[in-house]
Amino acid sequence: MGQTIIEKIVSTHANKQVHQNEIAIVNVDGVMATDTTAPLTIKAFQDMGGEKVWDSKKVFLIIDHAAPAPNERIANLHTLMREFAKVQNIKLYDIGEGICHQLMVENHHVKPGQLFLGADSHTCTYGALGAFATGVGSTDLAGVMLTGQTWLKVPASYKITLNGKLQSGVAAKDLILYIVGQLGIEGATYKAIEFTGPAVDSLSLDERMTLSNMAIEMGAKACFVDTTGLELPYDFNHIYGDDDAEYEKEYVFNVSQINPEIAIPHSPDNVRDIAEAIDTPIQMAFIGSCTNGRLDDLHVAAEILKGRRIHPDVRLIIAPASQKVFLDALRDGTVETLTAAGASFISSGCGPCVGTHQGVPGNGENVISATNRNFQGRMGNRHSNVYLASPATVAASALNGKITDPTTLKEAVS
Amino acid sequence: MGQTIIEKIVSTHANKQVHQNEIAIVNVDGVMATDTTAPLTIKAFQDMGGEKVWDSKKVFLIIDHAAPAPNERIANLHTLMREFAKVQNIKLYDIGEGICHQLMVENHHVKPGQLFLGADSHTCTYGALGAFATGVGSTDLAGVMLTGQTWLKVPASYKITLNGKLQSGVAAKDLILYIVGQLGIEGATYKAIEFTGPAVDSLSLDERMTLSNMAIEMGAKACFVDTTGLELPYDFNHIYGDDDAEYEKEYVFNVSQINPEIAIPHSPDNVRDIAEAIDTPIQMAFIGSCTNGRLDDLHVAAEILKGRRIHPDVRLIIAPASQKVFLDALRDGTVETLTAAGASFISSGCGPCVGTHQGVPGNGENVISATNRNFQGRMGNRHSNVYLASPATVAASALNGKITDPTTLKEAVS
Repeated sequence: MGQTIIEKIVSTHANKQVHQNEIAIVNVDGVMATDTTAPLTIKAFQDMGGEKVWDSKKVFLIIDHAAPAPNERIANLHTLMREFAKVQNIKLYDIGEGICHQLMVENHHVKPGQLFLGADSHTCTYGALGAFATGVGSTDLAGVMLTGQTWLKVPASYKITLNGKLQSGVAAKDLILYIVGQLGIEGATYKAIEFTGPAVDSLSLDERMTLSNMAIEMGAKACFVDTTGLELPYDFNHIYGDDDAEYEKEYVFNVSQINPEIAIPHSPDNVRDIAEAIDTPIQMAFIGSCTNGRLDDLHVAAEILKGRRIHPDVRLIIAPASQKVFLDALRDGTVETLTAAGASFISSGCGPCVGTHQGVPGNGENVISATNRNFQGRMGNRHSNVYLASPATVAASALNGKITDPTTLKEAVS
Repeated sequence: MGQTIIEKIVSTHANKQVHQNEIAIVNVDGVMATDTTAPLTIKAFQDMGGEKVWDSKKVFLIIDHAAPAPNERIANLHTLMREFAKVQNIKLYDIGEGICHQLMVENHHVKPGQLFLGADSHTCTYGALGAFATGVGSTDLAGVMLTGQTWLKVPASYKITLNGKLQSGVAAKDLILYIVGQLGIEGATYKAIEFTGPAVDSLSLDERMTLSNMAIEMGAKACFVDTTGLELPYDFNHIYGDDDAEYEKEYVFNVSQINPEIAIPHSPDNVRDIAEAIDTPIQMAFIGSCTNGRLDDLHVAAEILKGRRIHPDVRLIIAPASQKVFLDALRDGTVETLTAAGASFISSGCGPCVGTHQGVPGNGENVISATNRNFQGRMGNRHSNVYLASPATVAASALNGKITDPTTLKEAVS
């Protein structure tokens, strides 16, 4: 019987041929945990009698979820992580260095064909590279840190074929919002999603990461973006599914018909054509997170805001996905353009997206956000409303003080 | 009887000749409050039956102390301020736009010879411009917002004459730390300090602001920096004291003898020659605040860190004093230099200095900080130790991971 891509990757790591719904014991290529999960992981690791991690080169700790520390309690959790990293001789990315998923990809800690685990639900992002990557709990991760292995049930696969070409001004974010809207937040629970087709082949790595990132918003265990057309600064082997591989479901979408999309409160699958939310007043706008804080995203926002000034009733907060993204955006003038337009840059990290600090909305406020979840309270206040959209839509809406279709904006004055 | 400068300014605003220790009713040229104090001020204003502020052009609100909002409670206080500003038609500076004192000076809301009140203790900073400016409580400020007047006891003056020339690598911050060390934190309680002398004349506005800013660390009611040599982008009248003016005390310091200084835990007057703290390990370094977050300060740090990388055990956090400072530092490459050296920029505001968020140290950590207070717990954790120093000392220490005299550093590689 043929294999899906995910079955092939799992088989390689299980040292035997496996198919969907089988249980496999797999060797893990790498793991990571953040300041939200690592403290529990470390405690579990120690409770298990752990002394040394199985491979100090394959464990990564990242301080990004509440960084720089907003209070004494969290500062002490950060210290715990630093001390553990030092004793274990493992790599720790400290405050401001970047968001976990961006750092894992940017620094080549995860590569195509690998099996990678993270104590963070958006670990599926690495599917953009053609890796099998999934989020696990802190305690599960502790076991892996000790042994280098875990067990998993091989997920069945959904194939999503994307034909056509995105319209100008329509982004990978609009595409994934559209798909989440179609399948729903439980639409792919514990499945592996394969994205493939001509519309995928032309996407940049940044765009592919946006696509794979939100697979978890459909409940997916993992995601795999067809590596055809993927450019990486190193050589890698493409993995393709067998012709007779078994897919539990197949979807085909023509992306040419997709407009700017928006997820209205309070669920990421509450997706509408932007026309249905147009002119909703907004008070806060955010560009950042593991979904949309990359250079491509900042470029799109700068293009819209160049020579303009955001609406006086709006605060626009931007958190670059990493210090490298910030540095690149500094060097090409993007940070200057956005700051001159009235944006406030915060240090790289997850803050506003997860509601830990650095931009919690007030009661009754509407937020337009280039992030991944708009559950009630996600951004730190249950009495606010979060709309998810692309960086272009966020920038255009910040400009006008109300939800705006970026494709209808006149050209920016230069 | 002759008058001191402060007596002259108060007399102008009282419409009668006053001398020290007299009570005067004065007209106020402007007031400001921040997100720490404005919510209480607004409440007091409303409790007093206030409807409209006495002059909407003379009241300023600034969201800087905990911005962007770290939690729902504070987000709602910010909303209260925005709504009040809108109803009253007064200027509000929102999150990320800058630190109150920097904004008041930068945007010419306060000018030489004026009498200005702020619901923040470092309001004395405007003495750098030759204004009489002092901090008041929230309720007092509410009364002024209603009437445009307040009463005050005219402070007696101390004259501090600064002769000589600062050594290379020794900054205005070292100078004011030295003076605070000499006079002590209660050394000038309710006095007006006049800084004068040749060493003052050559100081930039940024340096003068560092000097006047920390007058409150000696308990001073106000401060006046001799405006000889002061350059401003508009015309203004210099004010000089009469030859027979009465000073309660006079000090003369030769600044040529001052070395890099450091205030060791836990008081700003616990000042030592840096030699006495040298090599103390540090884990966190901060450049920012109303004391040392200006362009001069960032330039000094960049000069030291250019082409270098901070110590791996240190996190260096930088908060520009305003968005304009950030933009200027973006345009001249300073932000790039500092980011490439490993610094994390946070949005402009007070956060780490006042311990509200964005950089609270962990238990047992040592912090070197270019701020104004190192009281126990000031930065948000009573179990940490804060050392106050100049931006040069902070940058040099971040580089070496331990307290370092910047004048002993070898030239940076270019």
